[in-house]
Amino acid sequence: MIPTAAPVDPTDPTDPTDDLVADVFARACPSRRTLEHITGKWGGLALIALTEDTYRFNALRRRVDGVSEKMLAQTLHALERDGLVRREVQTSIPPHVQYSLTPLGSRVAAKLRELIDLVEAEMPTVIAAQERYDRSR
Amino acid sequence: MIPTAAPVDPTDPTDPTDDLVADVFARACPSRRTLEHITGKWGGLALIALTEDTYRFNALRRRVDGVSEKMLAQTLHALERDGLVRREVQTSIPPHVQYSLTPLGSRVAAKLRELIDLVEAEMPTVIAAQERYDRSR
Repeated sequence: MIPTAAPVDPTDPTDPTDDLVADVFARACPSRRTLEHITGKWGGLALIALTEDTYRFNALRRRVDGVSEKMLAQTLHALERDGLVRREVQTSIPPHVQYSLTPLGSRVAAKLRELIDLVEAEMPTVIAAQERYDRSR
Repeated sequence: MIPTAAPVDPTDPTDPTDDLVADVFARACPSRRTLEHITGKWGGLALIALTEDTYRFNALRRRVDGVSEKMLAQTLHALERDGLVRREVQTSIPPHVQYSLTPLGSRVAAKLRELIDLVEAEMPTVIAAQERYDRSR
């Protein structure tokens, strides 16, 4: 989707504004970036973790094994900006920051979870394929 | 899943071989790498493109708008090694290399397509969230 109301030249078949349907195959479509936030190395794991529970930053970092503080902060900012993750500052002393999924984030995480379940279940097939491939080289 | 038959120390609660169920949250689990191949910037688009048709390398490169020759070659190797993509050399003159999905690749791509359909459909919501976020900074 190209979020613009710019005038469309009907004679230009490449004009990206002639089609307001999002298309991840189009380099300029913002859906590609959002998809990258969701399926990126850490974004996906953060979303799935947040389906289990709300988390404070450090607890989430422990759950997402291997992520650095900086990468997790960047990941959460991108997901918050996309409207998938909610960041709440609790007025306790000391103040705590709590992360949770928005309704849209929950729906996206559920779809992602289905994909991960399939991949996890099929790992024996994948590993057998990898071994066959490596033997054939 | 840790694909090893190494002896397990039953007194070591962190021994990764005590649980043969794949878990993308575990840093050492090979399912995390396979998931990265599937959901990586180019792997996902290549899988989805191959649900539409078989492709030769250059046609696939045109379909996956923005990918470099080197990145697409790496992407396809990883997906082939995981048993998701089949690479067939046709004995024509000149020989052609044709890429298609394996049955497992088709199932994975279908799940990924569902996720992408959701993200594409919800882009108006995402863009509204981004605009709210940017105004609040």
